[in-house]
This record gives sequence, structure tokens and C-alpha cells, in this order.
Amino acid sequence: MSATNTQVLLASRPQGWVKESDFRIVENPIPQPKDGEILVKHLYLSLDPYMRGRMSDAKSYAANVAIGGVMVGEIVGEVTQSRHPDYRVGDLVVGRLGWQLYATSNGQGLRKIARGRVPLSAYLGVVGMPGATAWIGLYDIGEPKPGETVVVSAAAGAVGSLVGQLAKIRGCRTVGIAGGKPKCDHVVQELGFDACVDYKAGNVADDLAAATPDGIDVYFENVGGDVFKAVLPRLNPFARIPLCGLVAQYNDTEPRGMPDMRTFLTKRIKLQGFICSDRMERWPEALAQIERWVIEGRIKFHETVAEGLASAPRAFIGMLKGENLGKQIVKLT
Amino acid sequence: MSATNTQVLLASRPQGWVKESDFRIVENPIPQPKDGEILVKHLYLSLDPYMRGRMSDAKSYAANVAIGGVMVGEIVGEVTQSRHPDYRVGDLVVGRLGWQLYATSNGQGLRKIARGRVPLSAYLGVVGMPGATAWIGLYDIGEPKPGETVVVSAAAGAVGSLVGQLAKIRGCRTVGIAGGKPKCDHVVQELGFDACVDYKAGNVADDLAAATPDGIDVYFENVGGDVFKAVLPRLNPFARIPLCGLVAQYNDTEPRGMPDMRTFLTKRIKLQGFICSDRMERWPEALAQIERWVIEGRIKFHETVAEGLASAPRAFIGMLKGENLGKQIVKLT
Repeated sequence: MSATNTQVLLASRPQGWVKESDFRIVENPIPQPKDGEILVKHLYLSLDPYMRGRMSDAKSYAANVAIGGVMVGEIVGEVTQSRHPDYRVGDLVVGRLGWQLYATSNGQGLRKIARGRVPLSAYLGVVGMPGATAWIGLYDIGEPKPGETVVVSAAAGAVGSLVGQLAKIRGCRTVGIAGGKPKCDHVVQELGFDACVDYKAGNVADDLAAATPDGIDVYFENVGGDVFKAVLPRLNPFARIPLCGLVAQYNDTEPRGMPDMRTFLTKRIKLQGFICSDRMERWPEALAQIERWVIEGRIKFHETVAEGLASAPRAFIGMLKGENLGKQIVKLT
Repeated sequence: MSATNTQVLLASRPQGWVKESDFRIVENPIPQPKDGEILVKHLYLSLDPYMRGRMSDAKSYAANVAIGGVMVGEIVGEVTQSRHPDYRVGDLVVGRLGWQLYATSNGQGLRKIARGRVPLSAYLGVVGMPGATAWIGLYDIGEPKPGETVVVSAAAGAVGSLVGQLAKIRGCRTVGIAGGKPKCDHVVQELGFDACVDYKAGNVADDLAAATPDGIDVYFENVGGDVFKAVLPRLNPFARIPLCGLVAQYNDTEPRGMPDMRTFLTKRIKLQGFICSDRMERWPEALAQIERWVIEGRIKFHETVAEGLASAPRAFIGMLKGENLGKQIVKLT
């Protein structure tokens, strides 16, 4: 056990792109659990696009991180001290305990996880928050029917890679959009998508048309911006757009509009923003089924792993730029 | 019976605003019904914003009117000859038989209506297509709950005036947006809305904020453009936007975007375009209930009536500019 608790704090609110200097790494004493609390030693930290929103002071669906506060984030950890009747030393938990090596908790918002079924880091990805996000967005909001065409952007990312596999299981033609040939190859060859469009190759509109000969029935939106503009003309009547993220726009300093509102009327399109935590009642079914499919080998996942908490700021910036393949994790021990 | 069938044809596709010269009025022989057909003498013609779309060659949800073709539109008429087993002379019907004084029909798409329950012209409005549109958009897509705030644009129009009254019946705070004090007074004093914002008064954002102290839960969209921009910041989390029309944009020559896509994500907003004819199975319940409420005096409707088919082009252009109050009708006899 290290003698101090390393923490990553928010040093300043980014203007435009996030910089490493927007974070500050500090050492503080390891906190002591009070009655009814546990001490958790963190093993893995999750890095997710939503954290960009928490760094700003723009009004959003959740409270922002204060300047000087510990960065928000999910971790997988192990209970090392317990003064809580429901937890024992050695229990494994997942929860939003932040970019640090230790935290105390009264158990609120924590989820106990099993040892030995899937790799522990998967509870931050495919059987964690990104998994629930993919399930709720695709199945509950997108409502894909067998034979329909599902397109997902950021297809090589934590959520997108699962969306495509869930769509395949549902019997859909599944097309990813990703940046660069290595990601597109991964999506098709490793994850089993029917096709993948490389938005960096310069012909998104034509390539998307070729990959979606029957148009698009569900577009799972993770990025926004120019990719969204390319998708819009391919949408079929009654298309559904679960709006999960806008990572291409998070560093914008001005609001960005949607092109061609008339299309939403003439094609009777449904666009619906959602946050997975609005539907916690759906998580148990979703994560239990995804875990079974992972164990059976029907769902694959890939991780990009940074080593050590000090690497988190750089890895986070890289993820916002799309440098990761699959889920971005920081291994803490 | 006049000796000829007066018809209004589409003479040219409008560029920007519709002009009277985009129409041509002609006289042709009255058609003769074949076996299995009826001849219908038209009594009232409906003028509706969707017809603007049918005049253009832009791809939409329905076929466009051909140059030289009879303008599309719903009429109420009386059967004057019948070679169809299900129709007798004197039967009253409503259907999409076009801007003309007579038409033959095999009965497809026609609906028989009763004499003496509500004024015949109401079957083109509150108990017709606009009525079904208001019902489906508000109740099925907007899903307002008692106590929520519903805002509707074009509130003095055929659809908007009914949307607000249906929202009041559901127990919602109901706010209209309309152009000019006379329309706003009508909406509040005659139709019973809680408030109405005059978008021509110059302070839409402030006036809307004052009229919606608890924010907006359902925004029934008929107009688009600047009104939509003013509404967006007032929307509550989980707001629903039934997208029914974009009359402020129909004469645009360039697509117009939606402002601030990020709001749809952070507030988890649902936007859904719809066309009432996609859900014909909902019409019988909707129109039967609306008719009962009209007879009971719980729902009021107002009409602006133009006299004679030759006045239809000018009345149509006036309606697109918002000169009508309530449903725009042309009385043909």
C-alpha cells in the first residue's frame, strides 16, 4: 500500500481542446473510513467522453467538477478496510469514486462484482456503464427490427463497438463509422460488423451510401458534427436516432446546429437524447445478458490500457481525439 | 348545377413565396361516373399548409402535384350521381378530391359524414385531418401529463388551436405562440389557453419565459425557424417535441438547421416528426371524441372563410402568411 493517495484534480476549465495543464496531480493522506464506511483501493480507472462535459461550467444533466476537485470517474476497486456491515475486506466493487488511488464510501452508488467471470476491467466497459448505454440506446430507443440497417458512429469505441454487436445479435445489417483503416478493419474483422466507413478517407457520403444500400433505419449517434450531416440523407422514413454523445463537438466553443430540420418532418424521424443513468432499472437485465454473451464468446471487447494514474490526463485527451481502440482504461496498480 | 367543372391547376413550381400566378383556373366538362363510381359536388374546400410541400418538387412523404395537375386538397361534398352500391345521391362525404367543383371517385379514401351534428365545414378542420393531427401529435407523441406545461406554435391556426384545448382537457398549463395581439387575445379569451406569446411583439424569449415559469414539457411545433430557437432554452429535461410542421420555413430556398444540438443530449429531449396519415388507425377514436367535445361545447373552433373557388389561391397565400384565424376554408356554393 502506497503511503499517500495520489489524486488528479481539475486545475482549470478547458477552453476548446483539453490540455494536460487543465489537470493537477497531488498527493494527500489516504482517507480513513468512518463508522458505516469502507476504504476502497482502486485497481482500474475508466476514461469516458462524458467527463469532458463535467470539466466545463456549462449547464448539463449532472453537477460539474469544481475547480480543485477530484476528477469524476468510475473505478474498479477492492475493499481494504470495512466499517460497513455489508462489505468485507477483499470485496470487489465498481463505482464513481474518481481519478484517485483510494476513496472512502458509505456504499451509495457502489455495485459489488464477482471475481473470475470476466476480466475486472470489463466492469468499466462492456459490462459496465458503456454496456448499459449501448443496450438502452439501441434496444430501448433505437428499437431495431431484424433485417433493418443500424449505423453507429465511433464504432471502435467502448459504446459503439458493443452497439454494433448487439445489432448483429438482433439480426440487423450493421455498419460502423470510425476514423482510420486500422479501426475499420478491427470493427469488421474482429467485431463482425458488416461494413465500416472510414470518415477520414475523404468520401464519407459515397462510402456510406455504398455500405447502406437499403438506407439507414437506426443511427446510434456518438459524435455529431460532419458525420451526422453525412448520415442524414441516408435515413429511411421512420428512422430512429438514439443521441448518446457528440464527442466531435465537446470541444466546440459555440453551439453547433443540426442540418436540415425539414428532413425530420418529411421522413418522420425520431431523435432522442438519453443518459444511461436515467434508466437504472434497465441495468440489471442488460448487464447480466451482456456478461453471459461475453462468457459465451458472442460479444468481444477490446481495451486500450494506460499505465498508472499519472498517465490519465494524456490518455483522456487522446481518447477525445480518437486515439484509443475500444474501451480506454487506466491500470492503477 | 353549373355547366362546367371549375378547377385550380398548378401552373408553376413556386420559387420562394407562392404567387397567384403559380396557379391557373380553368373550366372543363363535369366528369361522368363510370360503373362503381360516384360524382361528388364539392361544398367546401380545405386549405392547409402541407399543400405548399405538394407544390414543390422536393422529395417528401407524398407525391407532388404535377405541373398542370389539379391542386391536391380535402373537400366536403355531396353525392349527386351514384353508380356505386355503397353510396346514394345526397350522401355527404369528405375526401381528398382537389381544388375543383366536381370529382368522380370509386370511394377510396372517402369518409361518409353525418348531417346535422356539427357544421359540415368542421369535417375539414376540428373533426377532420387537422383534428386527427392535433390528437396524434399531442397525445400519442407529446404524451402530456397533468400539471405539465404544453406550448404550441401557430396557436390560432387549425391544428394549434385544437392542440391547446386538448392540452387543457388533459390538465396542462397551456401556452400558445401566435402572431399579433388579435390572435393572442382570441387564443386566451375564446379558446381558454392560459397565456399566449405574440412573436411579432419583439420579445419572444422574455415573454415566453414569463409565460412558462416552470419551463416547457411538450412543445408542439408547427412553424420552425426563429420561434423554435426561442423555445429551445425553455425546454425541461425529458421534453417532447412533436414536429408537425415548419410553416415558417416552407418558402425557404435553402435547408435550415436546428440550433444547438447539444441541448437535445443534455436535456434528453425527444423530437419526432409525424404525419397524421401514418396512423389512420387512431383517427376513429380521435375524431369521435373530438366531435363529442365539440357538441358538448368543450372544444371551440373558428374558421376563416373565403368565398368561391377563384379566391382559393389568394386565401392559400394569405394562410401561409398567417392572415387566417383558425381553419382556412373556401366555401364553394
